[in-house]
Amino acid sequence: MGWQKTFTLSQRSKGCHLITDEVYAQIAPGIKDVKAGMLFLFIQHTSAALTINENYDRDMDMALDKIVPENLEWMHTDEGPDDSVSHTKTSLIGATISIPITDGRLNLGTWQG
Amino acid sequence: MGWQKTFTLSQRSKGCHLITDEVYAQIAPGIKDVKAGMLFLFIQHTSAALTINENYDRDMDMALDKIVPENLEWMHTDEGPDDSVSHTKTSLIGATISIPITDGRLNLGTWQG
Amino acid sequence: MGWQKTFTLSQRSKGCHLITDEVYAQIAPGIKDVKAGMLFLFIQHTSAALTINENYDRDMDMALDKIVPENLEWMHTDEGPDDSVSHTKTSLIGATISIPITDGRLNLGTWQG
Repeated sequence: MGWQKTFTLSQRSKGCHLITDEVYAQIAPGIKDVKAGMLFLFIQHTSAALTINENYDRDMDMALDKIVPENLEWMHTDEGPDDSVSHTKTSLIGATISIPITDGRLNLGTWQG
Repeated sequence: MGWQKTFTLSQRSKGCHLITDEVYAQIAPGIKDVKAGMLFLFIQHTSAALTINENYDRDMDMALDKIVPENLEWMHTDEGPDDSVSHTKTSLIGATISIPITDGRLNLGTWQG
Repeated sequence: MGWQKTFTLSQRSKGCHLITDEVYAQIAPGIKDVKAGMLFLFIQHTSAALTINENYDRDMDMALDKIVPENLEWMHTDEGPDDSVSHTKTSLIGATISIPITDGRLNLGTWQG
């Protein structure tokens, strides 16, 4: 049986943000005794996504704005012009990440966060 | 040891479709006694993908057509002009989704499907 | 408790490569007695990603070059003009794949690799 916890991230503006430390503080108690396992992070949101990458924000945010531009012929704009934009970005990046746990720590690569 | 089931979705035309209810009907027996766990959905297809998002179809379909246009210089067109297009969309969206199970139910956000 | 192994893939040039056999050789001992389970592959890299698709490379590579072009206004180019490009592609495709294991074998679709 796994360990499961629901928590809320502090609010951030539109863009890409490094949340490794904030997540780690929440999940450390649950993984500390796991010798070999997996951590599954799932975000309960349709306008936000989770990814593993290097610590940077402006380039990824700029790139996503180019890949999914706000000026496409969006039909669903009741909740703002960027609503379907953010949904599309979310589906491209994904709502879940899976990270190996080894000897009680997240087994990430040197540059991953 | 986990519970595993292979099932077939009813046929649909090209586009984005909400399949939450159809999936739920298949997996409900397997998750009903799970207090804290994960559901992994995997699609055995190279021209279809799984994502978690809001209930809409036309915008996402339109956006994917813009992001991966049929008029790129595709080489692999033996099985139709949209074959590599659909493969590329599949890899961008992904063949798997992972959803937390809590107290026998999928622990999705309010708008997720 | 799961089985976990870290291994290194042989070096490849920039592009999309079929690594099914190389991965299979590494993980076969760990999955051979698994009746129903999941394999999670995680790549400890910020400029490489994992996806499940058909065996082809030139079209996907070409498409990713179009979707994330090198001539965007990238700011982070200290490590080369394609550094943020490859990070963005990595986040679009993803660092993890999850594959069902059934009766000791990866339960992939006919064309998946």
